[in-house]
Amino acid sequence: MAPKQNAFDQKKSAILSEIKSVSPDLSPKGSIDELCLPIIHLINSHEDMVTTSSCSGRLSVFAEGSKDVKSKIGGKGDGGKWLFVTHDKNAVSDWTSQFNFTVAKDMRTDSTTRYILYKYEPFILHVKCRDFASASQLYNTAMSCGFRESGIGSNHIVAVRISIKLDVPIGTFLDDQLQLFVEERYLSMLNNITLMKFQDNERKMRELYDKIQNEIIGKPLQETTAQPETKAERFERKRREGLERQRQLQK
Amino acid sequence: MAPKQNAFDQKKSAILSEIKSVSPDLSPKGSIDELCLPIIHLINSHEDMVTTSSCSGRLSVFAEGSKDVKSKIGGKGDGGKWLFVTHDKNAVSDWTSQFNFTVAKDMRTDSTTRYILYKYEPFILHVKCRDFASASQLYNTAMSCGFRESGIGSNHIVAVRISIKLDVPIGTFLDDQLQLFVEERYLSMLNNITLMKFQDNERKMRELYDKIQNEIIGKPLQETTAQPETKAERFERKRREGLERQRQLQK
Repeated sequence: MAPKQNAFDQKKSAILSEIKSVSPDLSPKGSIDELCLPIIHLINSHEDMVTTSSCSGRLSVFAEGSKDVKSKIGGKGDGGKWLFVTHDKNAVSDWTSQFNFTVAKDMRTDSTTRYILYKYEPFILHVKCRDFASASQLYNTAMSCGFRESGIGSNHIVAVRISIKLDVPIGTFLDDQLQLFVEERYLSMLNNITLMKFQDNERKMRELYDKIQNEIIGKPLQETTAQPETKAERFERKRREGLERQRQLQK
Repeated sequence: MAPKQNAFDQKKSAILSEIKSVSPDLSPKGSIDELCLPIIHLINSHEDMVTTSSCSGRLSVFAEGSKDVKSKIGGKGDGGKWLFVTHDKNAVSDWTSQFNFTVAKDMRTDSTTRYILYKYEPFILHVKCRDFASASQLYNTAMSCGFRESGIGSNHIVAVRISIKLDVPIGTFLDDQLQLFVEERYLSMLNNITLMKFQDNERKMRELYDKIQNEIIGKPLQETTAQPETKAERFERKRREGLERQRQLQK
């Protein structure tokens, strides 16, 4: 009989075997974004953490569905659909060639207008932690690295979020046509900006990887991680680390 | 001598007397947004919570500063400035008349281009709670009300966030001129969308107010609030509440 596991360990085993399996996962895309894999494997190497969902960052062009007065702008509405989604920065620049656009004759809109929204959304990651101390440790590391919209939720799940965004109404869906509010060269420029956002986003992901490696995986969980380190604590830690290095050198 | 207060109570007293004072606060605007006042007063009526910062939602038009390769798009950069900020939906429609725009001759941009960004940002609120149980209660209420980007941070501070956004590069700052990438009637349409976002945002604030009133202020903190209520717990609670109502009626 296998040794008895607690709830966290059971959940973690189940998730890890799902990540290893070749069958599609529950996301629309059906698999983990490749750019997320290093950070996912790093975090899952920690015995108190397991990743539960992720997106490496994406460009999407979305046509809103029909709206009644109650539904909000940007909501899916009835019959909304994604015209284009990519997680690959190399696929950004030429999506416009896949569609025929017409130019919107007027731009009068109201609360029922079905907008076409061009969006860039950055990396997001959810990590279930064993307890509040490990959740706090991950939260503090993410915040100190610029992921300023991170937060701890129910069941010690940390959402790691950053604000690198675009959210642009580029046209409308009218008489079954995609009518543009902007010139096609504006779309090319948006694609250009999106490319830079993909790059910024990747750079921040690498920074986060390094910080998690150095501050969490490389060192044991400390009792103080629920609070940011004070200057005195930092001084004391640096002193201890220095002494330890000296000891290693003398061996 | 005044009775001894713990750290949370001291902090709360200090914040409340600052809110009551007429001198400007530390925000760029110098005062609390009027639309936030009802929810701030409601939350501060709870003995385990105190609001620490808030914004009721705003439109801003921002000119990025000069950028080196390292700074990210949307960052302030060196010499960036707000051309326009309003928290008032009635001021949205006519800001364009305050500026002289020229039309951008070309839209070729690179990583040093100084963009003019048109942004709508929704209501955000930070609430310091006495302990993790009260922070979880507020977090769960916000999440269940559509504030899906909320999270608990350090020191039991809950960030209440929702995703009602616009983030549009409308032009560039070149040769000391504001050069538009879009037509002026596109700006009018953006203003129109922003107005609807202000309205959506206000509606969500009212929903949140009602939920906090009904689920937190109106009922005592329960041990189970760190976890969402299960179906069985809900059934049991409803049964108890029904019996209580019957008892009241029979009196």
